[in-house]
Amino acid sequence: MLTRVKSAVASFMGGMMAGGPNGDHPGGSDLPLKFPYSRPEFLGLSPDEVECSADHVARPILILKETRRLPWSTGYAEVINAGKSTLNEDQACCEVLVVKRRPAESSTPNRTPMTRRRSSLPNGEGLGLRECLENSEDLTLHYWALFDGHAGSGTAVMAARLLHHHIALHLQEVMEILCNPNLQAPTCLGEEPINHHLTPTSQRALTRAASLRGAAGAPGSPSTPPTRFFTEKKVSHESLVIGAVENAFKDMDVQIEKEKAVYNVSGGCTALVVVYLLGKLYVGNAGDSRAIIIRGGEVIPVSSEFTPESERQRLQFLAYMQPNLLGNEFTHLEFPRRVQRKEVGKRMLYRDFTMSGWAYKTIEDDDLKFPLIYGEGKKARVLATIGVTRGLGDHNLKVHDSNIYIKPFLSCCPEVKVYPLAQCEHGADDVLVMGTDGLWDVLSNQEVAEAVTCFLANCDPDDQHRHVSLVTQMQPPVGPELPLTPVLFTAQDLVMRARGVLKDRGWRISNDRLGSGDDISVYIIPLMYGNKQN
Amino acid sequence: MLTRVKSAVASFMGGMMAGGPNGDHPGGSDLPLKFPYSRPEFLGLSPDEVECSADHVARPILILKETRRLPWSTGYAEVINAGKSTLNEDQACCEVLVVKRRPAESSTPNRTPMTRRRSSLPNGEGLGLRECLENSEDLTLHYWALFDGHAGSGTAVMAARLLHHHIALHLQEVMEILCNPNLQAPTCLGEEPINHHLTPTSQRALTRAASLRGAAGAPGSPSTPPTRFFTEKKVSHESLVIGAVENAFKDMDVQIEKEKAVYNVSGGCTALVVVYLLGKLYVGNAGDSRAIIIRGGEVIPVSSEFTPESERQRLQFLAYMQPNLLGNEFTHLEFPRRVQRKEVGKRMLYRDFTMSGWAYKTIEDDDLKFPLIYGEGKKARVLATIGVTRGLGDHNLKVHDSNIYIKPFLSCCPEVKVYPLAQCEHGADDVLVMGTDGLWDVLSNQEVAEAVTCFLANCDPDDQHRHVSLVTQMQPPVGPELPLTPVLFTAQDLVMRARGVLKDRGWRISNDRLGSGDDISVYIIPLMYGNKQN
Repeated sequence: MLTRVKSAVASFMGGMMAGGPNGDHPGGSDLPLKFPYSRPEFLGLSPDEVECSADHVARPILILKETRRLPWSTGYAEVINAGKSTLNEDQACCEVLVVKRRPAESSTPNRTPMTRRRSSLPNGEGLGLRECLENSEDLTLHYWALFDGHAGSGTAVMAARLLHHHIALHLQEVMEILCNPNLQAPTCLGEEPINHHLTPTSQRALTRAASLRGAAGAPGSPSTPPTRFFTEKKVSHESLVIGAVENAFKDMDVQIEKEKAVYNVSGGCTALVVVYLLGKLYVGNAGDSRAIIIRGGEVIPVSSEFTPESERQRLQFLAYMQPNLLGNEFTHLEFPRRVQRKEVGKRMLYRDFTMSGWAYKTIEDDDLKFPLIYGEGKKARVLATIGVTRGLGDHNLKVHDSNIYIKPFLSCCPEVKVYPLAQCEHGADDVLVMGTDGLWDVLSNQEVAEAVTCFLANCDPDDQHRHVSLVTQMQPPVGPELPLTPVLFTAQDLVMRARGVLKDRGWRISNDRLGSGDDISVYIIPLMYGNKQN
Repeated sequence: MLTRVKSAVASFMGGMMAGGPNGDHPGGSDLPLKFPYSRPEFLGLSPDEVECSADHVARPILILKETRRLPWSTGYAEVINAGKSTLNEDQACCEVLVVKRRPAESSTPNRTPMTRRRSSLPNGEGLGLRECLENSEDLTLHYWALFDGHAGSGTAVMAARLLHHHIALHLQEVMEILCNPNLQAPTCLGEEPINHHLTPTSQRALTRAASLRGAAGAPGSPSTPPTRFFTEKKVSHESLVIGAVENAFKDMDVQIEKEKAVYNVSGGCTALVVVYLLGKLYVGNAGDSRAIIIRGGEVIPVSSEFTPESERQRLQFLAYMQPNLLGNEFTHLEFPRRVQRKEVGKRMLYRDFTMSGWAYKTIEDDDLKFPLIYGEGKKARVLATIGVTRGLGDHNLKVHDSNIYIKPFLSCCPEVKVYPLAQCEHGADDVLVMGTDGLWDVLSNQEVAEAVTCFLANCDPDDQHRHVSLVTQMQPPVGPELPLTPVLFTAQDLVMRARGVLKDRGWRISNDRLGSGDDISVYIIPLMYGNKQN
């Protein structure tokens, strides 16, 4: 993902098990780590197992130790890279959170949403399990996330620990609206709503919602609805959830930037999250991971990737508007290759930010600068440095040997797509697949769908022997062999198909293609459990 | 389309038949018109007929006087608005151009592409028909275009006269590449190509192409191919055509801006063009007109609209980057309605440029400014002024009673979509429909498809009586009644369905809905003629 910074990265990596605040300080920083490096919490690995997992030669595939450890019997598998970084820089998080309503009469704003499984304090200090009785006004939120780190593991680890708390916080702000299907989002909190046709019950809920924290004046006090002669845009509940996920990413990125002052938070990471809330799946993506739904064997893409190629026009537009960001070393124009001095005066193919086609222009001296976007496919880079254009962190990342910051070109904002899960029927073989780019670099959507569909169709959950024989064909999973669901094996199978097997000429997958040498992480989320929640 | 400038527009309109350089000077300008106002050339209307067509009460539907006047037996129909502007501000152009190769040995660069039907001098001065023998290296180009003007008709008239010349010019620059299917576009002209596997014939063609005008040094002289250790992006022929259309729009806009110094070129216009070249349809759109293909009764959208809503994030991003463009009167944030002073300190729904969802923010003084994007659907406006965000002209357009220019927010760049016509089979009822927003405001894609499919299915081209009876049911066309093809009637039928009939309560269409009071222009292009060209 990084090229010009890659050499610097090697020195970032301290001891393999870079520890807590008193451990090593990878990244050349004297600051302590905020969170020690580890593998995803739900894998439940011992330090020894984490050490074993980082074998760049054997590349063991890690799967869950226990069946049904994750919600909806989600399957998960991962494997470390073939040596491109000491640590597996992918991270994952999966949680079921119960967001509780703030005390209604609280006079002091409280930014802590109450959740059942854990506190959602954005500094991540656990208050332990909070046992609250669920009631109809609680909001249950299922959350799966993958983070693909680069130039260090610090940001990915931090995001895996904290991003869901930010999402929960933002959802808490609007949960009273979300919990009432009849309640339209008030344009301004603390005002009487207009244009509603509501039952008395929902009117009460609305009045309460309208007095949410932040509403100035006298919350809850009756006021005469003002007469208005203009129309207001109606905002759906779905839009509020999308906004909550979007702003959570932003807050996470701000927190990372701030905490870099006191902690060593190395590198950056992509983030792909799936949130299940009130019958809908919200897929938020910032980076080049991918999620697809496989329904009846058909692929439904539910995310797009953000790369120098897919975001070319946004990046060129920004550079055109603020050329100072290019430090006189780069040009916002795209050329098929670097322009040579002897070509000044000749006509060369180019693309400007407004173009999707190509045309010829006469080369000038200014065009001799390096192109902002350069290279194709997986080798495409922004500012000759980074191959992914959305994600968290990277605040200190600069073009090698220069003072040009990359961050202004990176966006921490996810694209959020919505899948109306509860409105669709799903069978036992219908799943959502989330994978980091290690998976998708070598397998197409169609190949993944065929593998998953074929694997699940041939699985009999009650036939443990067949599972074992499959395990024998593959790398043995780390940890004791316990009864596992087909979905777990499907995740393992996918990682296996993307990593391949070690032959004379390296890692090879089907048709003797090269396997992925990258970190690979995969969730398989069965969708029929979503039906049952409604 | 325009609100705050609308009052000013009324005074723009001089005499109905505002004439040539010595006629009236609408727009309050003392400068002469470059082109007199008229209806599309292919309608062949007399001045009297043009006068009749502008009846805002009867709103006669104009159709072609002769069958097969347009290529591919294209049907066309139009109607004037119900009074919102004195003139019909829609314009149309349809041409078949033969772009000829520049003289190979020409030492003086010649920016005039040679075309068979007319010269393509970008100042529009006709050199009359140029009779050249077609040869295999000529490039035949079919062109259909709609322009929807606002705040005056000058820009739409000028674009209808000139845009295709700009397209022809840009295509001429790359025609030697385009005419040779085996020739890959050279990255730099005047250099030996690399990485090609070509036949000797195509190598020769390539060498010639590589010495196209603009290549400095000694064109045509042999040079040793440099050794290169980097890969080059391969650029398809299709990308060159897309780039040609994109840059033609840009050049057209620059020409309009320049000629405003010497001519009265009022207002602005959207532009929707369809170019058929070498087996493919290229649909370029800048504005809110629309093109769809109807194939086997199914709708295939081949353009997107560019409006304050569809381009919200681009506009907000620009305003965020260059707040000076907002003149301290507007805010780049979006609110569901205008913020009131008493709401400062309260929490209100908002969207920033990175968001597609909504969230609450605490209102500050700065939020009291008018939102950059305001209103919904057809009423959405940029800077409270304009409802379309791409097009040509509008260089002088300002926010009413201010010094804030709209132009920086408008883009003259089209989105170009490609439909591989020759690769698809088309029947007699398969057509491409182009319409200005007057059509699509009141009829959905589906309604248009059903109307067209139903109409064509019931048409027997040999049964003239049935045609006449259909004409009787509708408004009689302007001009003598001549034998007409079903496609002509289909265009007329569509305009009729969108305009409706005049009842007590205004223009009404099916289900007693309101008809369009806007100018309406429609092409129906039968696609099976495209098959025959290949």
